Amino acid sequence: MEEKTLIFGHKNPDTDTICSSIVMEDFEKKSGNKNCKAVRLGKVNKETKYVLNYLGMEETPCIEDVEDGTNVILVDHNEATQSVDNIQNAKILKVIDHHTINFKAPYLLYYRTEPVGCTATVLYHLYTENNFEIEKNIAVLMLSAIISDTLLFKSPTCTPEDEKVARELAKIAEIDIETYGLEMLKAGTDLDDFSEEELINLDAKKFTSGDLNYIIAQVNTVSIDDVLKKKEKLEEEIKSVIERNGLDLFVFAITDILNSNSQIIALGDRVDIIEKTCKLENNTAFLEGVVSRKKQLVPMVENNI
Amino acid sequence: MEEKTLIFGHKNPDTDTICSSIVMEDFEKKSGNKNCKAVRLGKVNKETKYVLNYLGMEETPCIEDVEDGTNVILVDHNEATQSVDNIQNAKILKVIDHHTINFKAPYLLYYRTEPVGCTATVLYHLYTENNFEIEKNIAVLMLSAIISDTLLFKSPTCTPEDEKVARELAKIAEIDIETYGLEMLKAGTDLDDFSEEELINLDAKKFTSGDLNYIIAQVNTVSIDDVLKKKEKLEEEIKSVIERNGLDLFVFAITDILNSNSQIIALGDRVDIIEKTCKLENNTAFLEGVVSRKKQLVPMVENNI
Repeated sequence: MEEKTLIFGHKNPDTDTICSSIVMEDFEKKSGNKNCKAVRLGKVNKETKYVLNYLGMEETPCIEDVEDGTNVILVDHNEATQSVDNIQNAKILKVIDHHTINFKAPYLLYYRTEPVGCTATVLYHLYTENNFEIEKNIAVLMLSAIISDTLLFKSPTCTPEDEKVARELAKIAEIDIETYGLEMLKAGTDLDDFSEEELINLDAKKFTSGDLNYIIAQVNTVSIDDVLKKKEKLEEEIKSVIERNGLDLFVFAITDILNSNSQIIALGDRVDIIEKTCKLENNTAFLEGVVSRKKQLVPMVENNI
Repeated sequence: MEEKTLIFGHKNPDTDTICSSIVMEDFEKKSGNKNCKAVRLGKVNKETKYVLNYLGMEETPCIEDVEDGTNVILVDHNEATQSVDNIQNAKILKVIDHHTINFKAPYLLYYRTEPVGCTATVLYHLYTENNFEIEKNIAVLMLSAIISDTLLFKSPTCTPEDEKVARELAKIAEIDIETYGLEMLKAGTDLDDFSEEELINLDAKKFTSGDLNYIIAQVNTVSIDDVLKKKEKLEEEIKSVIERNGLDLFVFAITDILNSNSQIIALGDRVDIIEKTCKLENNTAFLEGVVSRKKQLVPMVENNI
């Protein structure tokens, strides 16, 4: 029996991370690596639950840590800060990703990143290159990931290739993209059950750039005002996260997926970085046309440090 | 007209770096990127000259630097220290490599590394995935790169995939691997024309690991003794490189390609790292079965820092 391989995406898993880990398990098994298993590093969000429910699939198992020397495959991330805590002692066999690269490993591995909007688009290329069949449930998972990451092709991170692949997958999945996609995205905006603490952690990514440590968190909504009602308590929670983690900056983006805008709340000693782009009033600002953490919010920090 | 893309491998180019840059130019043109050009970052060695001569091909142009914002594709390397001096101001479109990864870029790109012995093996995969024809001269270039990097399949860096790909390429190239390969490798061991300064720079790679700065240089030969005759002058040159570059360690490996052993000369304040593996006498040691910088010499340093 070959050694077990764990396949996972980033912490605070989103739909691309969960779906791509399950798809990658299928791809690995089709490639002959039978003893592999998709797992996750946190709670499944409501959007992803909608997808798994549509397919009648169970959630993948949640892991807290990996033992030293465990074989792992990373999907949808490459930076150690976004991965499992013990990643530096794991043996990374492959990375399949679509993010900027900040990666170091002292051994050889398979690394594949493409400049596209979603990991599932890269996975689709792996299937076609290898002439592997894409079954219907796998197509639904990949399509859902692309719809999620590109906000139904409206995000600036969306490339023509993502949309082309999504339309191919929709045929296999026998899904009407607009109808299914809007239902799926709306399912993800149901924030009622979440405490303020949970909201700011729902989709939070930590970044390190030189000496600067910051988090950009994001929630999708159909009503920015509904979320802003909780502003005071959200700020309390953000301040406590900043203190606990010694952060220089925390940006919380409330993104209106129907109109493609975001309201941000920014706190921390280095809010001056954000104020190089927009004026904060009471720690908050409305950003017209901003929906993408990767293409818009991260550069807003990185270009102004 | 689209912007020009320069394609190059590492400094101190070897056969894989030169051949893979030319092959990648062909691949890019077949992919529709017409305005691209293979270039090099240093002198073509005698082994590579043998290959180009066999094909009646000109050497690629040598560049010293790239202008800010130039589109580039890196083959056979990813670390900035091994690339063109101004790499941090270039726009890297793609990386095609087979080395360990120490890479950071603040923008999206295509990155492809596989755990194989040669960049040309990865390039072969790109051709087959895209159903691109491999013409005879391209097959000769790829085959030569694999023979060089794997020392005719005898290096521990050689994987079954490298050998499989080489045997496929040999059919297209209409080449007898053993005969051609031995002639090519022998052509590379003709060191007579080189000064001691040139010898230690012929295939030198610089590495940075935390605070440690070191170089591992390598020459291939059919007679270690012939090279060792120059030991005193080689040591003088090594000491001067250490001083000029503020290095902690310089390892010069003289590799016997017929018997697959190496004699090393190690100098610098941190020779203690090397002495954790082998005893140096008069700064030198014989390493049975050691032929690979990547799989044997680099780990000898990295595992003992």
